[in-house]
Amino acid sequence: MALLVQKYGGTSVTSPEHIGHVADRVAAARQLGHRIVVVVSAMGEETDRLNALAQATNPAPRPRELDVLLATGEQATIALLAMALERRGCAARSFTGAQAGIRTDATHNRARIESIDPTAIREALANKQVAVVAGFQGVDANGNITTIGRGGSDTTAVALAAAIGADECQICTDVDGVYTADPRIVPAARRLDRISMEEMLELSGMGSKVLHPRAVEYAGRHRVPVRVVSTFMSGDGTLVDHQQSDMEGPQLVGIACNRDEAMITVSGIPDQSGIGAALMGPLADANIDVDMVVQNQGQDGRIDLSFTVQRGDHDRALRRLRQTADELSARSVSANDKIAKISVVGAGVRRSHAGVVSKLCQVLAGEGIDIRMLSTAEIKVSVAVDEKYLELAVRALHDAFQLDRAEDTGSEDRHTDADTKSAV
Amino acid sequence: MALLVQKYGGTSVTSPEHIGHVADRVAAARQLGHRIVVVVSAMGEETDRLNALAQATNPAPRPRELDVLLATGEQATIALLAMALERRGCAARSFTGAQAGIRTDATHNRARIESIDPTAIREALANKQVAVVAGFQGVDANGNITTIGRGGSDTTAVALAAAIGADECQICTDVDGVYTADPRIVPAARRLDRISMEEMLELSGMGSKVLHPRAVEYAGRHRVPVRVVSTFMSGDGTLVDHQQSDMEGPQLVGIACNRDEAMITVSGIPDQSGIGAALMGPLADANIDVDMVVQNQGQDGRIDLSFTVQRGDHDRALRRLRQTADELSARSVSANDKIAKISVVGAGVRRSHAGVVSKLCQVLAGEGIDIRMLSTAEIKVSVAVDEKYLELAVRALHDAFQLDRAEDTGSEDRHTDADTKSAV
Repeated sequence: MALLVQKYGGTSVTSPEHIGHVADRVAAARQLGHRIVVVVSAMGEETDRLNALAQATNPAPRPRELDVLLATGEQATIALLAMALERRGCAARSFTGAQAGIRTDATHNRARIESIDPTAIREALANKQVAVVAGFQGVDANGNITTIGRGGSDTTAVALAAAIGADECQICTDVDGVYTADPRIVPAARRLDRISMEEMLELSGMGSKVLHPRAVEYAGRHRVPVRVVSTFMSGDGTLVDHQQSDMEGPQLVGIACNRDEAMITVSGIPDQSGIGAALMGPLADANIDVDMVVQNQGQDGRIDLSFTVQRGDHDRALRRLRQTADELSARSVSANDKIAKISVVGAGVRRSHAGVVSKLCQVLAGEGIDIRMLSTAEIKVSVAVDEKYLELAVRALHDAFQLDRAEDTGSEDRHTDADTKSAV
Repeated sequence: MALLVQKYGGTSVTSPEHIGHVADRVAAARQLGHRIVVVVSAMGEETDRLNALAQATNPAPRPRELDVLLATGEQATIALLAMALERRGCAARSFTGAQAGIRTDATHNRARIESIDPTAIREALANKQVAVVAGFQGVDANGNITTIGRGGSDTTAVALAAAIGADECQICTDVDGVYTADPRIVPAARRLDRISMEEMLELSGMGSKVLHPRAVEYAGRHRVPVRVVSTFMSGDGTLVDHQQSDMEGPQLVGIACNRDEAMITVSGIPDQSGIGAALMGPLADANIDVDMVVQNQGQDGRIDLSFTVQRGDHDRALRRLRQTADELSARSVSANDKIAKISVVGAGVRRSHAGVVSKLCQVLAGEGIDIRMLSTAEIKVSVAVDEKYLELAVRALHDAFQLDRAEDTGSEDRHTDADTKSAV
């Protein structure tokens, strides 16, 4: 008899039939006596349809009005799901972001949730209703409709779970959990029963589309247990746990990869203070996000700096950068717009960066794959390689790090639930 | 430099191109210095699309949730129109029903506007913005989204015009004004420059789809001048005037007709008190609306009662009525589901019901058209005839009452504007 938040994304609610299936699932959980808040996204391609309408009307729509438009997507879904639940004899009540008490700042299109007043939702739960809440949206202090940008519905779900003190926030999606690698690339990839927030953050930040990093961060900050489960299949999915993992084992949880990357290198920059800011500032101003950044001492005291950007930003970034590089009297600018990024992730990295890096280099060298860039983070080692090697590299690393096998030494702290092992 | 409310219905905003055209029109009025509040409906078939989604999800959706769903239609349009206006350099701000301060009662699907707090809209106008308001929707005292049912956007526009003290409420639609008859039936039909509220009410209540009777009533009560104009053509349209017309002439303003009617007659009901209630009560309970009702003394002190219903309600009405008729020991129930209703409307009817009725009967008899029912109202005489005679009857009456000619005697009070005559 738990208090649960369940989030269903766009692919789970593409049609009235899909919505009916979700209603069956929610009604079944109600039958078990759970109290439930459901957070839904817009139906399937609805957000794309609305964006296309906006583009046809004004190629540079005012963010405030874009939010008014986009918010209709989730509003339609909450009404339909509430209807579907009522049809199944399951009392339900829909809530727009505003009605759910979700207050955000005034940054349209990518607002941040400032507070949630769960009074109305608590009332619905007390009346034995399922509360069906529109994800992705809220309202600012002046009553303007806002949307909370990418990963919005995940973040709404986690924030609501925190606000009402839910026992678990379930992210119901089209995969049945978090895997050690993309199963389409690595058939031997294994579903994880449990993963730490920190590890999830690194995996999801790397294009594992399962759960948005913003939501993971929020869950970590507010200690909300999150579970990734399938909308369409039964199973326990993967629990994303806020417990710090203190285990000793050398374990890695997975290999993440991102295909649509480009890499830019500025070579031979005369050393002076503030180079990073000088180079990155114009990119930030143009809203170009930079990911891996590596700075090296080059020849004769000059500096080489490389970084990756999303492929779609490559041309714009290069144009801006050439100009800055000239101003800084850099020797050259080179670029490669067919780059893939691969990361090996796990708390075990923390214990031995050197061990993981050396093995990684050895495996890729063995396959004849050049490493274009390498950087390490707390629990992650990332490399940039030519895109054509992506599958080869991921498979080789998955195999070499034995990710297809559940750990069976030194990881007892990790598997505290009796049932997780057997579900592997 | 007037304060105007302009309402654009679904056919005026079917696509981004249509919305662009509306924006051009609004921007042009802004250029002239007018302050403008725009009220819009959902795009083209959007409301039908949403209703179909609801039906597919739950054939008997809860009215509260249906309102949440349907309200998205207008919300999308306000955002798009605001974007289109901004693209034309015309500052604009969208308002949902709730944001516009439109408070209704809690009767979902057909709520009544209780009050409007125009503070936010006044603020937008003061900031030289066009206020773009979602028609058809509001919010009840508990913050639930409501829709105000049929004719909703017209009513929203008129109510807003009243609340802000607008100089005129313009209903912009796909016809260029109010005609003496449907021009598709009567090619000689003439656009009226001016019509009284009362006359408009009778005309629009009779299936003249131009302006919803609820909106006309509201305008009459709050003395809001309403003008019906074309979205797509220039022209002054028809002014619906709250001035009582005191003229002397025998003028009629038009002939309205409604095709989709059915007629039911209960004959030989023993006279007793409360027959009307006994017969009509079960229909009202079943939400079947009854229109023309005629009661006559029949043979041997018994009573005959006839009335019309919408054709779609015919079978249901007949079923209920047979049962009641049995209980009342009525002699027989007969029905005709191919009936058309035709009304001759105008302040002139008031002066001489007898004159209008006798001429009407004479004209129809001359064409060999049987009158199945006849009833008179303050400024209207209505008849029910077999549907196949509809066009013939309307044309003959239009011709006989000389509606193709502007009145030129005894109607000076009517045409107070110098320009109206010439525009005929």
